[in-house]
Amino acid sequence: MNRILYEPGECVKGVVIFRKEKARHIRQVLRAGAGDYLKVGEIDGPMGTGRILNVSSNEVCVAVETEALPRKPPVDLLLALPRPKVLKRLIPQIAALGVGQLFLTNASRVERPYFDTHVLEPETMRALLLEGLTQAGDTLLPKVRVVRRLKVFLEDELHARVDAEERLLLHPHGGEPLFHALHAGQARSSRVLLAVGPEGGWVPFELELFEKAGFRRVGMTHRVLRSDTACVAALAAVAMRGDSRPGRRPGEPAGNFRLFGPL
Amino acid sequence: MNRILYEPGECVKGVVIFRKEKARHIRQVLRAGAGDYLKVGEIDGPMGTGRILNVSSNEVCVAVETEALPRKPPVDLLLALPRPKVLKRLIPQIAALGVGQLFLTNASRVERPYFDTHVLEPETMRALLLEGLTQAGDTLLPKVRVVRRLKVFLEDELHARVDAEERLLLHPHGGEPLFHALHAGQARSSRVLLAVGPEGGWVPFELELFEKAGFRRVGMTHRVLRSDTACVAALAAVAMRGDSRPGRRPGEPAGNFRLFGPL
Repeated sequence: MNRILYEPGECVKGVVIFRKEKARHIRQVLRAGAGDYLKVGEIDGPMGTGRILNVSSNEVCVAVETEALPRKPPVDLLLALPRPKVLKRLIPQIAALGVGQLFLTNASRVERPYFDTHVLEPETMRALLLEGLTQAGDTLLPKVRVVRRLKVFLEDELHARVDAEERLLLHPHGGEPLFHALHAGQARSSRVLLAVGPEGGWVPFELELFEKAGFRRVGMTHRVLRSDTACVAALAAVAMRGDSRPGRRPGEPAGNFRLFGPL
Repeated sequence: MNRILYEPGECVKGVVIFRKEKARHIRQVLRAGAGDYLKVGEIDGPMGTGRILNVSSNEVCVAVETEALPRKPPVDLLLALPRPKVLKRLIPQIAALGVGQLFLTNASRVERPYFDTHVLEPETMRALLLEGLTQAGDTLLPKVRVVRRLKVFLEDELHARVDAEERLLLHPHGGEPLFHALHAGQARSSRVLLAVGPEGGWVPFELELFEKAGFRRVGMTHRVLRSDTACVAALAAVAMRGDSRPGRRPGEPAGNFRLFGPL
């Protein structure tokens, strides 16, 4: 846990009480006690620093001072719904890398039963997203939306829902190198909507829909990557573009584990 | 399967017989028959194109014309051994992204029982590597070595085993942006040795060892990534650097699935 998150309602008069797994983590992993500082954050709200007031066997009481709202990640992701097992391990990674919106879409090569997975239930999804945010030290929950009809979405809804200046379709064969697309001209600072296809790729009809919707085809390497690998790789490429400061943000303390115990 | 691989001994007078899963894939997924062409490759040998001679219920007989040896990927990876479950799903991704050598190393924060996993047994490891190569369309098996004593390795063996000009240590806090490190000056074309730590990071003693061994610290984003996410992200960053041609190699046919059936 690189930032310990709490629900908006959990902070009463500037004090949050952490219980269960979070309390255990503070006590046993961070080995923190009264007077120590923690990186904390309100889910979908500001990040902050917490000073531990007291630690009991099952509760850790923390006085919170909130700081700035985190910036919204400069990328939205449209991902052909992968099979449940892959989805489940991919969601925390997507949240950790950071996206503003996540569209999980149907496609010709997406199997229908994938939509029945419990991973898409709001509670499960939220828990997986929070796992990623806690890891990354962020507080902003990606907005997740399930898209059942890709054509309708691309033709009628995309414009209203996404404000990205660059629409890039990751494709294993052909197209401009993603690296160039992300660094050419204005692209360096623009919002990006990335589309990542299903195993086996998009079918020609879908490729046409994307083209009509203003997507440019981009590729990463001459190697053909699995859809989930490509997804992590491409999001990381966008994150690296926007972030020339690799360490902490200005004025922000380092990770929790730097504040307590051995590095 | 974006390239169907065979063992060196399986090619007799230019003909390979594919059986079991590979034969099934050719028949049912690629829907290929006599006269069709396939992307094939000899494990740790040249890539090639195969012309199907005939297809029976459990065998596919292919005449192979070998082409160039693939280039060795421009990166070696030193990875603190992750827990078995993570290792198992990471190995195919590492092989797909491409590394020359893979050193799986002990570290202060690596738990001893991790070394007992069956994933490290040569047969299991080889199968996982081949899964990644088949996906990526490559034939070169990464050379995997288990490093039990990181200190001895960094002090006494590294120099003889690794010829990378750039030694980069991925670290969540501080350091030069990986992006800069990969694109500054000569770095664009040099071999890279990447070191990725365990969950919780390297301890100070280990960081010193790396520094003495000539590693520079680099970071990717201000977000703290899980070790396996960071690993995929960093390898992809190296791959994108070296590969300004995103599609296929010159003269090489597109992926198997482009040759047969719908895209």
